[in-house]
Amino acid sequence: MSLRDGHDRGPERLLIRDLSQVASPAGRAAPVRGPALGEVDVLEEAYVLCEGGRVARVGPMRELGAIEGDVVELDGRGLSAVPGLVDCHTHACFAGDRVEEFALRAAGASYEELHAAGGGILSTVRATRAAGEDALRAAVERHASWMLRAGTTTFEAKSGYGLDRETELAQLRAIRAAGGVPTWLGAHAVPPEHADAGAAAYVDFLLAEVLAEAAELAEAADVFLERGAFDATQARRYLEGCAAAGLALRLHGDQFTEAGAIPLAIEIGARSVDHLEATGHAGVLALAASDVVGVLLPASALFLGRPLPPARALADAGAAIALATDFNPGSAYCESLPVVLSLACTQLGLSPNEALAACTVNAAHVLARADRKGRIAPGFDADVVLVAADDWRHLAYHLAGPVVHTVVRAGRVACSSRA
Amino acid sequence: MSLRDGHDRGPERLLIRDLSQVASPAGRAAPVRGPALGEVDVLEEAYVLCEGGRVARVGPMRELGAIEGDVVELDGRGLSAVPGLVDCHTHACFAGDRVEEFALRAAGASYEELHAAGGGILSTVRATRAAGEDALRAAVERHASWMLRAGTTTFEAKSGYGLDRETELAQLRAIRAAGGVPTWLGAHAVPPEHADAGAAAYVDFLLAEVLAEAAELAEAADVFLERGAFDATQARRYLEGCAAAGLALRLHGDQFTEAGAIPLAIEIGARSVDHLEATGHAGVLALAASDVVGVLLPASALFLGRPLPPARALADAGAAIALATDFNPGSAYCESLPVVLSLACTQLGLSPNEALAACTVNAAHVLARADRKGRIAPGFDADVVLVAADDWRHLAYHLAGPVVHTVVRAGRVACSSRA
Repeated sequence: MSLRDGHDRGPERLLIRDLSQVASPAGRAAPVRGPALGEVDVLEEAYVLCEGGRVARVGPMRELGAIEGDVVELDGRGLSAVPGLVDCHTHACFAGDRVEEFALRAAGASYEELHAAGGGILSTVRATRAAGEDALRAAVERHASWMLRAGTTTFEAKSGYGLDRETELAQLRAIRAAGGVPTWLGAHAVPPEHADAGAAAYVDFLLAEVLAEAAELAEAADVFLERGAFDATQARRYLEGCAAAGLALRLHGDQFTEAGAIPLAIEIGARSVDHLEATGHAGVLALAASDVVGVLLPASALFLGRPLPPARALADAGAAIALATDFNPGSAYCESLPVVLSLACTQLGLSPNEALAACTVNAAHVLARADRKGRIAPGFDADVVLVAADDWRHLAYHLAGPVVHTVVRAGRVACSSRA
Repeated sequence: MSLRDGHDRGPERLLIRDLSQVASPAGRAAPVRGPALGEVDVLEEAYVLCEGGRVARVGPMRELGAIEGDVVELDGRGLSAVPGLVDCHTHACFAGDRVEEFALRAAGASYEELHAAGGGILSTVRATRAAGEDALRAAVERHASWMLRAGTTTFEAKSGYGLDRETELAQLRAIRAAGGVPTWLGAHAVPPEHADAGAAAYVDFLLAEVLAEAAELAEAADVFLERGAFDATQARRYLEGCAAAGLALRLHGDQFTEAGAIPLAIEIGARSVDHLEATGHAGVLALAASDVVGVLLPASALFLGRPLPPARALADAGAAIALATDFNPGSAYCESLPVVLSLACTQLGLSPNEALAACTVNAAHVLARADRKGRIAPGFDADVVLVAADDWRHLAYHLAGPVVHTVVRAGRVACSSRA
């Protein structure tokens, strides 16, 4: 890629003209599921007209006609357009890195050996607690700039590396300040100072001491429901408390073991249950019969050398699925949704069309923004990725290639490879 | 990434100073194997001084002293340096793409269905024959520019999409003109006009009609030894003819089936046998006892959803292994060696150190350039990748991230993310 950063800039009216293709998930419904998941509307030789940060018109060039008044034109020849990508599951607010743990794991170290070497979530907790809010904000901004270059115009980010009142709230403020959609993941792990009292007592602490302010900052709450983290009873209590404070609900579930995440997610009306590498047939069917979105994170499975989630089975059963990066320093140091699109096509058995819908409209649905994000259609936010090829599917086909040519956000060029 | 292209430019003397790390495979031997594969020399707070396109000195900053005469300085603070990456197996000379085939495969189409839809190698042969030599040269140059941005300063490229005299030679000329190391892969597939006569007769044609001129253009010959392509008898005759004409020998072997590639490679003294996804225990031991390098192509296995090559077993047995992209439009549309490094660490069980040696010094050995490529050491070509992190292992750790900050080739900045 050859992109330069820039502050969002440009005209109130932007005409992207002569595009080889404009591709957008079909229809207006969200989430899309069943056969609709594979339906992408593709206009050939087309334009997108943006006004006031929104898409005003989309159509074939032959129907463009004259545009009255001032408008800046962007030459789309040889390029194709897809909606700005939506990353609905990241842990982009952290300090430090885990490159040493990565190297040890590659060399065959066991989980226990990594832990003994100071690795794992708690090593990021130590670095994040020590960083201070300004540094955390700078980190999220840096990570957001990486995401932007990869075509992500909307991202969620979770807390969960603070695990104390002050740092959890600082993370949520840093995420908001950097333009992310904040999720409170207080129940990510039990921190050392609560280890003796245990997970249930730590949930008590979160609900009594952190929730009130977290609910002012976050849009949703999330919990790591997994053996060794929080069990279904603790997760339920945490999420019910968060729901009462007005937060939407999400769960990390079925990453290593099936521990009741899908039934709980359905019962409490969660927006999503995320990971699902360990989900079996019954879980697939239950999710498909529900309104909960299954968020799949193939880069994480790749990074850890773990089994892949049953994406094809979920899609075939009619479940609503989304794709996200899981960007985090330990198990998925990858902010690129185009790479996730590639992995979806080569590892998960999804078609490029299905994968696109999963990281645009369906991811926007998980973030309660599907009325204005995830499609290129009149009235939607003018978030558009220009792909450096005449067929938009190069975004998935060209693994880690320079496929993101220009990113338009809110109707302005946010970054571009053009000089 | 945020890189801008540039023609190689800059001073005769370049000092890269204040680097957090300079990392280079240890020693001077090539190929490295056994325990040496995992040995990387890392200098902290170091510099690299380049003169006349070569590395003049490398050392810790405290030993830099005064530099006499004109020298341009490059600020390495926060960056780390590794040798310019060497991609020893690509098919970078082609026209057209195979995005439709990619989409059909992702949606579950079988090999036969892809073939019926006009996919496969022969679809690229049609496009490559139709392109003309100027377009082929432009294509290799474009692909080389992508590789460069990903840190590849030396690349091999094969013919094999012509399969007729004129186009095979045009491919080799295009690869040379674009700065690649050319390999003649005449025996890649049997083209339609030879289908009736069969593979053996096509080999006759190659040896009688193409070899003499191909041997003037290429450095090595390669053959696709696989069920449905060329068998061991045909491969032997092709390679023996090529050896007599002065070409070094390589083989595509054990990609889908074990068809005798490793024994043949050893017997005829090939430089490498490449792919090895299907190699069993006996093949691992035979290769380890030989001087033939096993070239592993994990992006190809990922792209096709195929089993991975037995990298760990090969390394543990003491085989010399290299890593390459296999960049091609059908089975590995990925020119990024950093992504291959990542996959080596997460999928193949190699440590970052082992993976680095495999795509620097050992890849250079496959290309008979290990005396001057693949290490940062006095007398070696001044090909250096500056990694955008204080630990070089981010090159593998940060999957598809903006990790390549600046690429120096022959002592000059070839591309950089700096304005």
